[in-house]
Amino acid sequence: MKNYQIETILSTNRKPKPDSAHLEFGRTFTDHMFIMDYTEGTGWHDPRIIPYQPISLDPSSMVFHYGQTVFEGLKAYLSEDGKVFLFRPDRNFNRLNHSNARLCIPQIDEELALEALKQLILVDRDWIPQAEGTSLYIRPFIISTEPHLGVAPSENYQFIIIMSPVGSYYKEGIHPVKIAVEQQYVRAVAGGTGEAKTGGNYSSSLKAQEVAEKVGYSQVLWLDGRENKYVEEVGSMNIFFKINGQVVTPALNGSILAGITRDSIIQLLKHWNVPVVERRISIDEIYQAYKDGVLEEAFGTGTAAVISPIGELLWKYEKLVVNSGEIGKLTQELYDTLTGIQNGTKPDPFGWRIEVNPENTAKDMHSGSLIY
Amino acid sequence: MKNYQIETILSTNRKPKPDSAHLEFGRTFTDHMFIMDYTEGTGWHDPRIIPYQPISLDPSSMVFHYGQTVFEGLKAYLSEDGKVFLFRPDRNFNRLNHSNARLCIPQIDEELALEALKQLILVDRDWIPQAEGTSLYIRPFIISTEPHLGVAPSENYQFIIIMSPVGSYYKEGIHPVKIAVEQQYVRAVAGGTGEAKTGGNYSSSLKAQEVAEKVGYSQVLWLDGRENKYVEEVGSMNIFFKINGQVVTPALNGSILAGITRDSIIQLLKHWNVPVVERRISIDEIYQAYKDGVLEEAFGTGTAAVISPIGELLWKYEKLVVNSGEIGKLTQELYDTLTGIQNGTKPDPFGWRIEVNPENTAKDMHSGSLIY
Ligand SMILES: Cc1ncc(COP(=O)(O)O)c(C=O)c1O
Ligand SMILES: Cc1ncc(COP(=O)(O)O)c(C=O)c1O
Repeated sequence: MKNYQIETILSTNRKPKPDSAHLEFGRTFTDHMFIMDYTEGTGWHDPRIIPYQPISLDPSSMVFHYGQTVFEGLKAYLSEDGKVFLFRPDRNFNRLNHSNARLCIPQIDEELALEALKQLILVDRDWIPQAEGTSLYIRPFIISTEPHLGVAPSENYQFIIIMSPVGSYYKEGIHPVKIAVEQQYVRAVAGGTGEAKTGGNYSSSLKAQEVAEKVGYSQVLWLDGRENKYVEEVGSMNIFFKINGQVVTPALNGSILAGITRDSIIQLLKHWNVPVVERRISIDEIYQAYKDGVLEEAFGTGTAAVISPIGELLWKYEKLVVNSGEIGKLTQELYDTLTGIQNGTKPDPFGWRIEVNPENTAKDMHSGSLIY
Repeated sequence: MKNYQIETILSTNRKPKPDSAHLEFGRTFTDHMFIMDYTEGTGWHDPRIIPYQPISLDPSSMVFHYGQTVFEGLKAYLSEDGKVFLFRPDRNFNRLNHSNARLCIPQIDEELALEALKQLILVDRDWIPQAEGTSLYIRPFIISTEPHLGVAPSENYQFIIIMSPVGSYYKEGIHPVKIAVEQQYVRAVAGGTGEAKTGGNYSSSLKAQEVAEKVGYSQVLWLDGRENKYVEEVGSMNIFFKINGQVVTPALNGSILAGITRDSIIQLLKHWNVPVVERRISIDEIYQAYKDGVLEEAFGTGTAAVISPIGELLWKYEKLVVNSGEIGKLTQELYDTLTGIQNGTKPDPFGWRIEVNPENTAKDMHSGSLIY
C-alpha cells in the first residue's frame, strides 16, 4: 500500500448520536469529514480528516454558477459481530472518475480515496448504526471552487467525503412503490451527461418528480430523450422487469447511470442461473407484456433503497399493476441476498464485501492533530 | 413603488479598484453584495446589502450535490456624462423566474430584485468603469442551501447579487471568432432544461468546448438533441445568420435560452426594416447557403460579448469561412447601435435603457448600518 499522508485533526466537540430507531435519510452527519484540495499546476493536495464543519466559499465560486460537480453514494454496514463492511467501494471511486472525465474535473487517485474513506470510517466508527435496515450512508463529492465568472473548467476543486447514519430509504421499509412513466420531461439524452453522477441530472429531474408526486406517484420512470420511447431509469435507481421468466434491464447506452447495485443484481441472477438480459426495452413492449399477463415483477435498484419493488406503473392514463401490487418472489430473494451480503449475515461468493479495520487501514488513531 | 425594507451594512474596508485598462472578465468583485434568504413556510426574507464576503454552507447543502441553481447576467454602464444605465434589467429578473419555475425554485419578487440591484449599484457606483467597452457585469443567482442529502426541491435558498467591473469579453475586442459545429455532445433536448439558465447546462457543455479549443475553435455551435440536425445556440450566445439578404435565427423551441440580446437584435432589425425570421434552421441548410455563396454574415449575441461576429464554422471536416473572415457590415452596425444604446451614446427609441440614480431608487445612502 502506498503511504498516503492523510493528516487527521480530531473533533473535540462530539455531537450526540441520533436514536437508531428514528433515523432520517441524509439529515444527520458524523463528527468528521475528509477533504482534499486541487490547484491547477499542483494537482490534488493536502488530504485531511477534519471536524465536520461548514465550507466557506467566495460567492463567485464556480460551483454556484456553472454546476461543475460530481458525487457518489455508498454505504458502510456494522455486522452483528461488530465488523465494519463496505460494499464494492472501489467501483464508486472508479465511477467518480468516469463522471470527472465527462465534467472536465481532474481525476482523483482512487486508491487514496478508498484509504481516506477507511480512515474516516474508523474515526467515526461509533456512528455506524447496527439496527436492521440501518447503515452509514457515505457521500463523496467534488465541487469546483475557482472564484471566477466565465464558462470554463475550474482551476480549483475540493473533494469531500461526508457520512450520515441512515435508516431505510423509505420510512416504511421495503414495500412496492408506484412509479409514473414520464411523457413530457426528459432527464438525459445521448451525447449528454446522463451516464455521469453530476448535479445537473438531478436538478433537471425535480419538476417531473413534483408533478408525479402530486398525483400520488413516488418517482418517475424516464424514457429516452431522442424518441421518448425506450425505458431508461427511475429517479436514483436502475430498473428491472421480469417478463415471462426472463429478467430484462436497459443496456448501458450512455444516458443512464451504470449502477453498482444493477451490476450486482445481474451477477447474482447469473450465479443463480436466472435468465437476465441487458438490452433496449421500449415502453410499448412493457405495456404489451402487461396486457399479455407476462409482466411478472418489476423493481428498481440503487444504493439508497437497495431494491424497490414496483407495484404500479402509470402509463398515459392506464395503471399497470404489477404482481397484484405485492413484492415479487424474485425481488424479495434478491433483496434478502444482497442486503445479507452487504451487512455480513450471508456468505459473499463474489468478494464484494470489504472489511474496514485498523489492520488493513492506517496506523492507530490518537486524538489530537497528527500525521500518518 | 412598494417600500422594500432592504438593510444595508456598508463595508469599512474598501478594496482598491482595478485599472480599467486591464480588466479581466469576472475575476474582481465590488465591495458589496446583495443577499436574501428563503425559508419554506416563511418565503423570501431579510433582503440586505452587505460587504462582499464568503458564503458559509454546510457540506450537505443541496447546491453541492443536486445542482439546483439558476443565474442571470446583465450589465451596468457609466455614460460619458456620468449617468448609470441598466439595459432591460426587468427581462433578466423575469427570465430568472422562468428558470426558477423549471428548477422548482420559489419565485422571487421581480420588483424587489430590481430595486435591490439599483441600491447595490448606487452603493458600489465608483466601481463602474467608464473606458470604451467596459462595464459592470452583474450576476444575480440562486442556490439551494438546505443541508439534506435526498433528491427533492430544497427548503432553503439564497438569492445573491454580485458585481464585477469588466472589459470586453474577448481580450482583443470585437473580432470574428471561429466556431466548431458539435457532432458528438449534446447540450439540451426538448423536455430538458435548455431554456433555463441553470448550472447543469453549462457544466455539460465544458467537454465539447475543451475538445473544440484543442483544435483552435473558441466555442461550439450546438445542434438539437433529438436529431442532431437543427442549429440551436453557441456557448453563451444565440446565433444569427444573414442568408441572401434575410436574417434568420433559431426559433425559441424550449431547448435554447431566450436571449435578451437576441430579442433586442430582432427588434432592431424590424425597426430598420431588415427582413428577420425566427424558425427552425438545419445545419444542412447553412452548409447549402455557404456552398451557394449566400451565407453573407453570421454572429452570436449575448450579454457578455454583446455581438460576436463569426468568421468561420467548422462542419465535419470542412471550414465554412463567412464573409472572408471579416466582420460583416450588418453585424458591425448592430454592434455599434446596441452598444451605443447601452452606454448612452446613441438614442434609445425602445426605452430599453434604465437610469439608476438616487431619485428613482431608494433613500439617500449613509455609511454605517441602517434600514431603508
Ligand atoms: C440516476 C441514478 N441511477 C441509478 C442509480 C443506482 O446506482 P447504484 O446502484 O450505484 O447506487 C443511482 C444512484 O446512485 C442514480 O443516481
Ligand atoms: C446558453 C445561453 N444562450 C444565450 C445567451 C444570451 O442571452 P442574453 O442575450 O440574455 O445574454 C446566454 C447568456 O446569457 C446563454 O448562457
